Amino acid sequence: MRPISFEIEKRGKSLARAGVLKTPHGDIKTPAFIAVGTKATVKGIAPEKFAELGMQGIIANTHHLYLSPGEDLIERAGGIHAFMGWDGPIMTDSGGFQVFSLGEGFGKKISKFAAPENSAEPVADESPSVWSEELATSHGKLAIIDDDGVTFTSHLDGSLHRFTPERSIEIQHKIGADIIYVFDECTSPTADYDYQREAMDRTHAWAKRSLAAHRQSHHHNASQGIYGIIQGGRYEDLRIESAKHLADMDFDGYGIGGSFTKDDILGILDLVNSELPEDKPRHLLGIGEPEDMFVGAAAGIDTFDCVVPTRRGRTGSVYTPEGLVLIRNAEYKEDFTPIDSECDCFVCKQFTRSYIHHLFRTGEMLGPILATAHNMRFLTCLTERIREGILNDNLDHVRDDFMHRYKK
Amino acid sequence: MRPISFEIEKRGKSLARAGVLKTPHGDIKTPAFIAVGTKATVKGIAPEKFAELGMQGIIANTHHLYLSPGEDLIERAGGIHAFMGWDGPIMTDSGGFQVFSLGEGFGKKISKFAAPENSAEPVADESPSVWSEELATSHGKLAIIDDDGVTFTSHLDGSLHRFTPERSIEIQHKIGADIIYVFDECTSPTADYDYQREAMDRTHAWAKRSLAAHRQSHHHNASQGIYGIIQGGRYEDLRIESAKHLADMDFDGYGIGGSFTKDDILGILDLVNSELPEDKPRHLLGIGEPEDMFVGAAAGIDTFDCVVPTRRGRTGSVYTPEGLVLIRNAEYKEDFTPIDSECDCFVCKQFTRSYIHHLFRTGEMLGPILATAHNMRFLTCLTERIREGILNDNLDHVRDDFMHRYKK
Repeated sequence: MRPISFEIEKRGKSLARAGVLKTPHGDIKTPAFIAVGTKATVKGIAPEKFAELGMQGIIANTHHLYLSPGEDLIERAGGIHAFMGWDGPIMTDSGGFQVFSLGEGFGKKISKFAAPENSAEPVADESPSVWSEELATSHGKLAIIDDDGVTFTSHLDGSLHRFTPERSIEIQHKIGADIIYVFDECTSPTADYDYQREAMDRTHAWAKRSLAAHRQSHHHNASQGIYGIIQGGRYEDLRIESAKHLADMDFDGYGIGGSFTKDDILGILDLVNSELPEDKPRHLLGIGEPEDMFVGAAAGIDTFDCVVPTRRGRTGSVYTPEGLVLIRNAEYKEDFTPIDSECDCFVCKQFTRSYIHHLFRTGEMLGPILATAHNMRFLTCLTERIREGILNDNLDHVRDDFMHRYKK
Repeated sequence: MRPISFEIEKRGKSLARAGVLKTPHGDIKTPAFIAVGTKATVKGIAPEKFAELGMQGIIANTHHLYLSPGEDLIERAGGIHAFMGWDGPIMTDSGGFQVFSLGEGFGKKISKFAAPENSAEPVADESPSVWSEELATSHGKLAIIDDDGVTFTSHLDGSLHRFTPERSIEIQHKIGADIIYVFDECTSPTADYDYQREAMDRTHAWAKRSLAAHRQSHHHNASQGIYGIIQGGRYEDLRIESAKHLADMDFDGYGIGGSFTKDDILGILDLVNSELPEDKPRHLLGIGEPEDMFVGAAAGIDTFDCVVPTRRGRTGSVYTPEGLVLIRNAEYKEDFTPIDSECDCFVCKQFTRSYIHHLFRTGEMLGPILATAHNMRFLTCLTERIREGILNDNLDHVRDDFMHRYKK
């Protein structure tokens, strides 16, 4: 029996569905927002608050955890659940996205069999084995791709590292999340069709190798589920081809995305999802603002993740039914109402906009803590409403009701 | 009936006593550590955690809250309890200490009837009315004292302000804490005997004016208690004289301190307290590290406050029974034990040193949050043990037991 299962409770008239994603560390009622916990911590929120804020699962990052503190340490700690002190469902993204984005790769220094720009000696078509550490680090942050994997420099200290599909899976096995992802190549949104196809083909080959590497470990195969990742950039035909290709492989679920702009994918989600097995869960990687979750849920997405709510919280941008409020603005100095009077979170029950404005204005760390907690609850609450909408056959009404008030 | 009362439950063989300090917002079992909440927030700890961490009361700061967000705003919010979302006992320090320390005053730019140093035109013995805003601000941060009050510049924007005893009390009335303090002059630890005497006499005159300003308001007199502050710097005879002088005035309690170095006062606390009315509570201002609280409690101090535990927490210095641990140090990278295995706080129950090390090393805000929470609990727990020691007539044993292991 697989460690991950998905039960659909109700299908909407669109592709939407409400379900339950079962993991070794608990169930996730879907659609759900998965909080970003890149370095095995959701910035500013202690795990004991997760349940209270409606957080059903988190997604950590293989690339970051590999660099610090290292997957071996996390394994010795007893896995990521024990390490971070939370016993709920955890995913790890494979690190593909970060390898490319933190390598400042796409469009500039990234190159397949080609030297980084400004290199005096282009070495196109040479074997990656000629890439010396000296060459790589002398050009600063970069990611150099070949068909076998990616060589990249650490954004922390410039040191040289290499990920292959097998290595990413090995690291994710040691980290020990409930759901792991195949290693994929994330392309630049400006990459042309030919490159996108080439990258997609490589991602498919890597998906196959990632899956094989996972399935060959009985222990990890029994305790961790694995998701494939659909790529194809902004090209509809490539996305559909990618979905079809991966659908034929026996993954426990599917991630959509890994693109650098959400415009690439939101409009064709329904086409992609139509190609995927209906009984497998689908996660939309890195996209999860309120308006996106309505689009995604209607197109059959089950889980979302996004750094934006926590990042916004840290800078004092908070969600309300009327849209984002910049709490530092002078107009909130004497606003003795909650951030969102309809919200059930402890922040809205206990504190005023005026107080949180004061905390941000005086640089007090409680400001980002409270704003982040509220933003998280706002999004989990929204997915609960979306789920209710699907269960009650009125998702359109829930969406219109929300979007009518909400100003982006 | 006064809003503040103090009941002694047990007297030790030294001057130590265990008691209950009753305030309009709840009781404080003493000896107790009062958490510093300068700007109406204890850095990194939401009020909902206060009780869990054994925090019975906090002390906010008049000077900081006056500058931002302003006492009028806090009054309109319904007072500091409503403003910060906590319904427990709150003190406000009068702001005297901050006026001088943030004005970078003592020993340098502070001057009584004398121009700040580097002034082209000394104006000694002239009336303070000749001090123009231009003169004051042209010399940067400063505090200029006269017998009526202090003119000082804001550390935030350099603007000019003035506190008198009456003004400090008015501000503290609007802030609305349960216990307020008289406005006092804090001297430099290097000030000579003559200046200390002069400053002490001025502090006594200001204490009388502060008390009168408080008692004349029936409303505030009924809802807020007022503490006098013993000064006298490092001179034993002045401290005793100050204690005697203030003991004759009808305060609800007494603050000791306001000095810039704790060496000035710890050794003569017993002499000072012997002069104070036994039935009034005594607060040691700004001093409260573990070793200090044993000294203070034995000398008859009832409550302590100190910024050090929260400040240490933010930089990753955590209390343990063996002394301070710098959690960022490499030796804790794989230490899978709690910060303090004897501690009952949620941090020690749920997280390892290794994880908190990781959080600090990767710059995650949960690190300072967890370290601060533990440090707070360590100190409140220590005062609970001190209290038990007094109640059980074995404070010496508790102290020896603790200090034997604890390395400063």
